[in-house]
Amino acid sequence: MLLQKGQKLLFIGDSITDCDRAKPAGEGLFGALGKGYVSLVDAFLQAVYPELGIRVVNTGMSGNTVVDLKDRWEEDVLDRKPDWLSIMIGTNDVWRQYDTPFIKEWHVYADKYEATLRQLVEKTKPHVNKIVLMTPFYLESNAQDAMRRTMDEYGAIVKKIAEESGALFVDTQAAFNVVLKDLYAATLAWDRVHPTQAGHVVLARAFLNKIGFDWNRG
Amino acid sequence: MLLQKGQKLLFIGDSITDCDRAKPAGEGLFGALGKGYVSLVDAFLQAVYPELGIRVVNTGMSGNTVVDLKDRWEEDVLDRKPDWLSIMIGTNDVWRQYDTPFIKEWHVYADKYEATLRQLVEKTKPHVNKIVLMTPFYLESNAQDAMRRTMDEYGAIVKKIAEESGALFVDTQAAFNVVLKDLYAATLAWDRVHPTQAGHVVLARAFLNKIGFDWNRG
Amino acid sequence: MLLQKGQKLLFIGDSITDCDRAKPAGEGLFGALGKGYVSLVDAFLQAVYPELGIRVVNTGMSGNTVVDLKDRWEEDVLDRKPDWLSIMIGTNDVWRQYDTPFIKEWHVYADKYEATLRQLVEKTKPHVNKIVLMTPFYLESNAQDAMRRTMDEYGAIVKKIAEESGALFVDTQAAFNVVLKDLYAATLAWDRVHPTQAGHVVLARAFLNKIGFDWNRG
Amino acid sequence: MLLQKGQKLLFIGDSITDCDRAKPAGEGLFGALGKGYVSLVDAFLQAVYPELGIRVVNTGMSGNTVVDLKDRWEEDVLDRKPDWLSIMIGTNDVWRQYDTPFIKEWHVYADKYEATLRQLVEKTKPHVNKIVLMTPFYLESNAQDAMRRTMDEYGAIVKKIAEESGALFVDTQAAFNVVLKDLYAATLAWDRVHPTQAGHVVLARAFLNKIGFDWNRG
Amino acid sequence: MLLQKGQKLLFIGDSITDCDRAKPAGEGLFGALGKGYVSLVDAFLQAVYPELGIRVVNTGMSGNTVVDLKDRWEEDVLDRKPDWLSIMIGTNDVWRQYDTPFIKEWHVYADKYEATLRQLVEKTKPHVNKIVLMTPFYLESNAQDAMRRTMDEYGAIVKKIAEESGALFVDTQAAFNVVLKDLYAATLAWDRVHPTQAGHVVLARAFLNKIGFDWNRG
Amino acid sequence: MLLQKGQKLLFIGDSITDCDRAKPAGEGLFGALGKGYVSLVDAFLQAVYPELGIRVVNTGMSGNTVVDLKDRWEEDVLDRKPDWLSIMIGTNDVWRQYDTPFIKEWHVYADKYEATLRQLVEKTKPHVNKIVLMTPFYLESNAQDAMRRTMDEYGAIVKKIAEESGALFVDTQAAFNVVLKDLYAATLAWDRVHPTQAGHVVLARAFLNKIGFDWNRG
Amino acid sequence: MLLQKGQKLLFIGDSITDCDRAKPAGEGLFGALGKGYVSLVDAFLQAVYPELGIRVVNTGMSGNTVVDLKDRWEEDVLDRKPDWLSIMIGTNDVWRQYDTPFIKEWHVYADKYEATLRQLVEKTKPHVNKIVLMTPFYLESNAQDAMRRTMDEYGAIVKKIAEESGALFVDTQAAFNVVLKDLYAATLAWDRVHPTQAGHVVLARAFLNKIGFDWNRG
Amino acid sequence: MLLQKGQKLLFIGDSITDCDRAKPAGEGLFGALGKGYVSLVDAFLQAVYPELGIRVVNTGMSGNTVVDLKDRWEEDVLDRKPDWLSIMIGTNDVWRQYDTPFIKEWHVYADKYEATLRQLVEKTKPHVNKIVLMTPFYLESNAQDAMRRTMDEYGAIVKKIAEESGALFVDTQAAFNVVLKDLYAATLAWDRVHPTQAGHVVLARAFLNKIGFDWNRG
Repeated sequence: MLLQKGQKLLFIGDSITDCDRAKPAGEGLFGALGKGYVSLVDAFLQAVYPELGIRVVNTGMSGNTVVDLKDRWEEDVLDRKPDWLSIMIGTNDVWRQYDTPFIKEWHVYADKYEATLRQLVEKTKPHVNKIVLMTPFYLESNAQDAMRRTMDEYGAIVKKIAEESGALFVDTQAAFNVVLKDLYAATLAWDRVHPTQAGHVVLARAFLNKIGFDWNRG
Repeated sequence: MLLQKGQKLLFIGDSITDCDRAKPAGEGLFGALGKGYVSLVDAFLQAVYPELGIRVVNTGMSGNTVVDLKDRWEEDVLDRKPDWLSIMIGTNDVWRQYDTPFIKEWHVYADKYEATLRQLVEKTKPHVNKIVLMTPFYLESNAQDAMRRTMDEYGAIVKKIAEESGALFVDTQAAFNVVLKDLYAATLAWDRVHPTQAGHVVLARAFLNKIGFDWNRG
Repeated sequence: MLLQKGQKLLFIGDSITDCDRAKPAGEGLFGALGKGYVSLVDAFLQAVYPELGIRVVNTGMSGNTVVDLKDRWEEDVLDRKPDWLSIMIGTNDVWRQYDTPFIKEWHVYADKYEATLRQLVEKTKPHVNKIVLMTPFYLESNAQDAMRRTMDEYGAIVKKIAEESGALFVDTQAAFNVVLKDLYAATLAWDRVHPTQAGHVVLARAFLNKIGFDWNRG
Repeated sequence: MLLQKGQKLLFIGDSITDCDRAKPAGEGLFGALGKGYVSLVDAFLQAVYPELGIRVVNTGMSGNTVVDLKDRWEEDVLDRKPDWLSIMIGTNDVWRQYDTPFIKEWHVYADKYEATLRQLVEKTKPHVNKIVLMTPFYLESNAQDAMRRTMDEYGAIVKKIAEESGALFVDTQAAFNVVLKDLYAATLAWDRVHPTQAGHVVLARAFLNKIGFDWNRG
Repeated sequence: MLLQKGQKLLFIGDSITDCDRAKPAGEGLFGALGKGYVSLVDAFLQAVYPELGIRVVNTGMSGNTVVDLKDRWEEDVLDRKPDWLSIMIGTNDVWRQYDTPFIKEWHVYADKYEATLRQLVEKTKPHVNKIVLMTPFYLESNAQDAMRRTMDEYGAIVKKIAEESGALFVDTQAAFNVVLKDLYAATLAWDRVHPTQAGHVVLARAFLNKIGFDWNRG
Repeated sequence: MLLQKGQKLLFIGDSITDCDRAKPAGEGLFGALGKGYVSLVDAFLQAVYPELGIRVVNTGMSGNTVVDLKDRWEEDVLDRKPDWLSIMIGTNDVWRQYDTPFIKEWHVYADKYEATLRQLVEKTKPHVNKIVLMTPFYLESNAQDAMRRTMDEYGAIVKKIAEESGALFVDTQAAFNVVLKDLYAATLAWDRVHPTQAGHVVLARAFLNKIGFDWNRG
Repeated sequence: MLLQKGQKLLFIGDSITDCDRAKPAGEGLFGALGKGYVSLVDAFLQAVYPELGIRVVNTGMSGNTVVDLKDRWEEDVLDRKPDWLSIMIGTNDVWRQYDTPFIKEWHVYADKYEATLRQLVEKTKPHVNKIVLMTPFYLESNAQDAMRRTMDEYGAIVKKIAEESGALFVDTQAAFNVVLKDLYAATLAWDRVHPTQAGHVVLARAFLNKIGFDWNRG
Repeated sequence: MLLQKGQKLLFIGDSITDCDRAKPAGEGLFGALGKGYVSLVDAFLQAVYPELGIRVVNTGMSGNTVVDLKDRWEEDVLDRKPDWLSIMIGTNDVWRQYDTPFIKEWHVYADKYEATLRQLVEKTKPHVNKIVLMTPFYLESNAQDAMRRTMDEYGAIVKKIAEESGALFVDTQAAFNVVLKDLYAATLAWDRVHPTQAGHVVLARAFLNKIGFDWNRG
């Protein structure tokens, strides 16, 4: 288990991270961490490693692209001084290209996505112990689907930046692909984007596995 | 134009027909016909053929399968004595097989779908001037997608029954396929099922074209 | 069809244009374009000319007169850099003279209406490809009715400015008059101003016909 | 003043009478009498003739036609044993012919209107001291307007029945016509049917004048 | 009738004047004038003298004392340039002395009341055609009741200022006293302050009588 | 202290007893006993005599008269098998005579009040340990006020029945009169009927004093 | 892993099981399984063993005791024909003894609890493959606390019945005790009963461990 | 009785003081003082010593710690110029250490608590007649419970500061301990913090006893 006693773990991202968390910051009781994978990660850390006192904070924001993250990076990441930072972004960067194709200024194309994400990672690296980069995903089993192909491209960019920067890399698309062999996409998300509880378990497991969580502890 | 002065045209179906219509029956002012293709058909008939006085009634019901239609056929179709009847059903019969695969009793498989739909058509034919059968559809351009394949099967059943019974046949999937060449499915429906206004225009056009509506009249 | 690939078409006006659109700007999914003729125009453009990628934006505002338009012209028209601009204004300019006759400062009389509308058109002409001017209308078949007479005067002003400026001219009152031969005004609007879906179809048809829309395409 | 100490005065009618009264019966404090002419009549009777202790009851119901009145006559009129009964009905009987012309079963044509109203009056006459018959009205100054013409026909029927039966007759259309010389219809009612407070004052005055109310008393 | 063609009549006061009027200013359609005597005065002026085009404006505010009026006098009276001004204030000035006796700073005692009201009247007199001063009132028939006695004192101050300044004087308490001979106070107001519709008729009649309104006109 | 370990004490009455209690029966946590004197009595019993385990139940119902009590006596009193029963009724029996004087069937006059209350007491006496009869009250210091005089009459009836039947008698009007010497009625209740928290303390004290509650215990 | 392909697993219990599930039965998408451990179990089964197609149903009901379960056993357990049944009941049976000690009929004492639970288990055993019995729990680390002691007694009863009947036994109190060594009870539940997400993870883990779930699968 | 005629008594604290009081300041009618012990103290002072005219003000604020009090001390205490000041603070200072142990900056440890409270008392002493210091409390009968032990420490600090500064000292924990001998904590507060009405009576009694309130007066 890589996390150490008393560390603060901050998650940032879009609606999949947000999941109706408390504002301005998601932390504390009463569902403040939202209803998604962040809350699951927190719950497992508390239930299985209660003595570590890991503090989880959620600053995901629905509808965000990597450009939106950049605009609020100072106050929503750096000022909060996390020990660990997890980033999962890109859904909306890609989706807007497909659901509102005529409104170009809502799209974030691959070059801008890559440059902006790299800049955020580089800027933050000196200030934290560890960064976790999670790919965006698309709950479509057909790898030739246009939007799935684009999403895979963005995933590859995340992987490249993780390797460059020494961040931990979580391939969420790969984790979902295993399940999509048995379950049709609509079981996990009517819109192929916002997962059910089962989908959030897939995300939380992928994250926890990467940080050396021991499921059979205790 | 096949509809004649003073005729009553009744639409029945699932949520795509319902679209938040008035209950118990959707007819009259104040959005009583819902927000979908039924309301568009009615609006075009009134605006372009005002002198015909066609009366449109909507008895679609969200979540319905063909089995649900059967349960309310007497009061929601026959008792209302329509001159024309349009049926578009099958979305949920198929969808439940894919979004809740473990709950078998919510599924309506192809044989039961076919038998039930045929029974309803046969029973109603003597009482109306004309029946229109619209296929269910799935807003997925990949014809090899599992759910799209099943939906196409159900569409083929609708076609077969239309031919047997002399009903007018509206191939909504074909109409959407034209648009899906240029627009990604998510533009027309996040969940690939409930269309935007543009999607409802596709449905209304397909319907109106089939009944000989003259777009350039007046 | 006069609109060309990738162009942006902006509609401005009063409540008949607004129709509960998204604020600050009406564009994108989820009913952002409102429930009226603007949404219908957009839906037909998408459904019939999907490859053109026309982007429709709605900045209508309930209760507005031409004077209100002037106050927000910079941000709601010019700053949005449309290729095409459609203006339909005047309902409230006239209506207030009849429904609250004692509150004079709510009225916009013909001379001010004409001067202000001309000024907006002249100022905007150099910045757009084409302007469409739609008359205001009143759903009253009696051409001698006091408010109808005034509305017709304002319609004549719109026509004059269209001719002067080379704008496309859409005579909405004429389009409604055809329907009003067969349908009593209350069928289209209890208050003779805010139309039903059928009334919005009349408006959308008049607009689309003027821009060379091919109804039988595809 | 024709009303005598301790008498009960019951009003029945449609939405113009109802005006959001308490249900099942409108009487007592806290706006139970609704917001229209009934409440004004009650307020003037209490304020100017407090010693008479006239009890006013409102059983108007929105949307009602004379046929609906017939269906609830026993419980909403006879069972309540009024000394005076005021009836104003017919708006919806006529309006449905004009706003939903294709839905014939919602219309109540003149012959049925006349027969039903006469039957109600004849049946009730032996049980009450006095009946007041108020005409329905339409806030349109053009007497040649189609719906206004029909409404005038229904008003003439009311007059005929009043004369036959010895009921007091209140010509509400005539009372409004005086005001419509100076005020455009939209000032009194956007939809030409549901009046503003000023319109309800016209109705209350016409009623009170007919029963010999002394405005300058006290 | 003292009011002349085209004049503006502004009412200011507390909750009895406010009665849920539109904010920031109560004028126009849709109940903008509130549900009290102001709306009744307006409705009678429109219904009986429609050709005069009197414009009524309501700027009453719930909970106000004369001190609160002073704070908003510029924008809510002078800036609106009325021809006639009607003031009814004092209820809360007195009531707070009786319902929250220990919170002294909420009380406005007689000397401050008199000085402030006189100052407002003097300041405004040069700018308007006529001022109407209405007394505050208390719906208690026992003239020896402590709060009634105080209210009567404030009423006497209003009378004095009216006489000094040549304002029209409306003795609302006297008008209510007539009715209170026959009706127990609770019939007109459970809290002895906020009247029913009947109570507002008493107020409107007292006002209209003072300005020479002809009830039997037309 | 007259109450003994484990006894059940049931309160019945009108809105002053009800005070928004839980339905169908007011007992248990979360404000189930309402916001009035019943909850105060319960709280003092629990806080000062926790070892007695007195169970308090509230079945007061807003708007009730003694006739309404009679209609639900079986299920709301007898079936609940209380050891002690407290009744405070009469407010609405009297109030309706004064606030809606013309609606006679809403009034319960003194003879019917007395007969009905006596009948309830007699019927219940054999089944309970003790009955407490609390007078209704009116927060008006002027003993010559018409409604106060009537309320005092009803109070005298309660006293008579208490004496006849050996019930404990709580004179709530007397308890309030002490306070009304120093506080104007409006401080305790705007409508002279529904008391503030201070008024409910007056009621709770009067009740607790009568049953021998020791305020200085513990 | 003890669960086999296509089996139905039904959970019944009180509010900790209910957690705002859909009614009448909790199954399907959109949070139908509630927000607690049942939803977590379902999500892990779907995410880790998607090919098994386990169907999870939740019929927990807030506030229930074992006596309430008995009353709805036929329709909410037997009629649904589960393959596996999990029961966690007893919280309210104990809690009411401590939070509303004077209302005896809300308490379910140990003998009745044991008899009723045994009866339900015996009756159901022949109809299902396997029963899982989960103890009720109390989030109090002090084992001498009165309510904790009682809860432990009830837990021992559950254990006894599990042994007698061959049911799987899940000791939830023991699972929580491990965590309570490091976390104060208030971290997991302000009221010591309704757990946070972390508490529900403790429950889900205990359940899944007992049925042989392989956390490291896939 | 230590309070004297016309004095103002201000309460400040956290949610136990706040109890849904009016904002910005809790004073006056209509539940402005909240639903807790402050309202009870006020009600007893009014009901038993009405002639003193004590004015009670509530400025408690949910969630506050002593540090939050300090931030608003000027406007919420000093600017309101109370004669008496009662402070009850510390619940959240302690609770956050136990319910969100990992979020250190939400904790207020004993040294900071002591220093801040002393500073506030010292600063205020010269401006008021008397200060009352009430301890925070925890409704847990086990004195060895971790959070109860901490709360007792904070209570000891309050006692020390009261002695130093000559403030009246109210030991709320001691008052509750008497009741907790007979009632399990959950009867008084599910979360052991926010009391029922009975718990607020315990607080109000402890306060009133300390200021010499005579329960048997009048």
